[in-house]
Amino acid sequence: MRVLGVDPGLTRCGIGVVEGVPGRPPVLVAVGVVRTPPDAGIGERLVLLEQGIEAWLEAQQPEAVAVERVFSQHNVRTVMGTAQASAVAITAAARRGLPVALHTPSEVKAAITGSGRADKEQVATMVTRVLRLAAAPTPADASDALALAICHLWRGPAQARLAAALGGRR
Amino acid sequence: MRVLGVDPGLTRCGIGVVEGVPGRPPVLVAVGVVRTPPDAGIGERLVLLEQGIEAWLEAQQPEAVAVERVFSQHNVRTVMGTAQASAVAITAAARRGLPVALHTPSEVKAAITGSGRADKEQVATMVTRVLRLAAAPTPADASDALALAICHLWRGPAQARLAAALGGRR
Repeated sequence: MRVLGVDPGLTRCGIGVVEGVPGRPPVLVAVGVVRTPPDAGIGERLVLLEQGIEAWLEAQQPEAVAVERVFSQHNVRTVMGTAQASAVAITAAARRGLPVALHTPSEVKAAITGSGRADKEQVATMVTRVLRLAAAPTPADASDALALAICHLWRGPAQARLAAALGGRR
Repeated sequence: MRVLGVDPGLTRCGIGVVEGVPGRPPVLVAVGVVRTPPDAGIGERLVLLEQGIEAWLEAQQPEAVAVERVFSQHNVRTVMGTAQASAVAITAAARRGLPVALHTPSEVKAAITGSGRADKEQVATMVTRVLRLAAAPTPADASDALALAICHLWRGPAQARLAAALGGRR
């Protein structure tokens, strides 16, 4: 099972691809970031992000896509861009008929560290350990995208049902 | 100048197309709503919305697209869906190389009624009057989309510069 995780953002959108089966250590396939210029118009940024995500989906051919669920409790300006970036990622995946699952930051932290209130550093440490890497992937968005993909793998069969309910009906 | 206005939403996305020149009464070209089923997954809904908006752009061939700027001060659940729907509309337009302008609800109200604090009914009344219609287009999302398109037409040359800054660089 190959999963592509997306930590949505307009300036830096983290992408992480892992492979594995529930209960076994997952393997890193690829990790990176899609960037768009902060001084460009929103239309140009969303199209550039779409092109970047399409390129990842085409190159990696994942069987499922996991995207961080966005809440509006954070900074107003940031959350709008994050919500728009997540829409581009979800639409690109669903357009290809891929199941899309949304995970909250707490669900990801709990899956990776055992605590839904773990800090970013702890998540990065566990991502590094689980994937047996020499160092944590940078920037943090890339590491967070891997955490999302691992979370999706580990939640296994329950997650498949959730994906069907949330966006994998096509 | 033909403008397509979008009042973004997942359940009902208003679309209104008007034609005209600054300072002259605009003419109604077409108006309607793209709907997606509330019980479908977010992936399916965004793809259906994208297909609906693409069909409108293809059929109407507007020269510019005006989208309501989304703020996160409203209901948390609603605003996320609205932000995601707006991203789909902006991306679809920008992908075609169309200039995209964002207008706040206050800007639209001020352009149509003279007051940025006008209520929805007042906006609908003025849309009906300006376009010389027998009755206000329904649902309200359709009427609001026309108001956005009219606002865009009337803001004229200043708006073209704003569009360039906001999303029309492609």
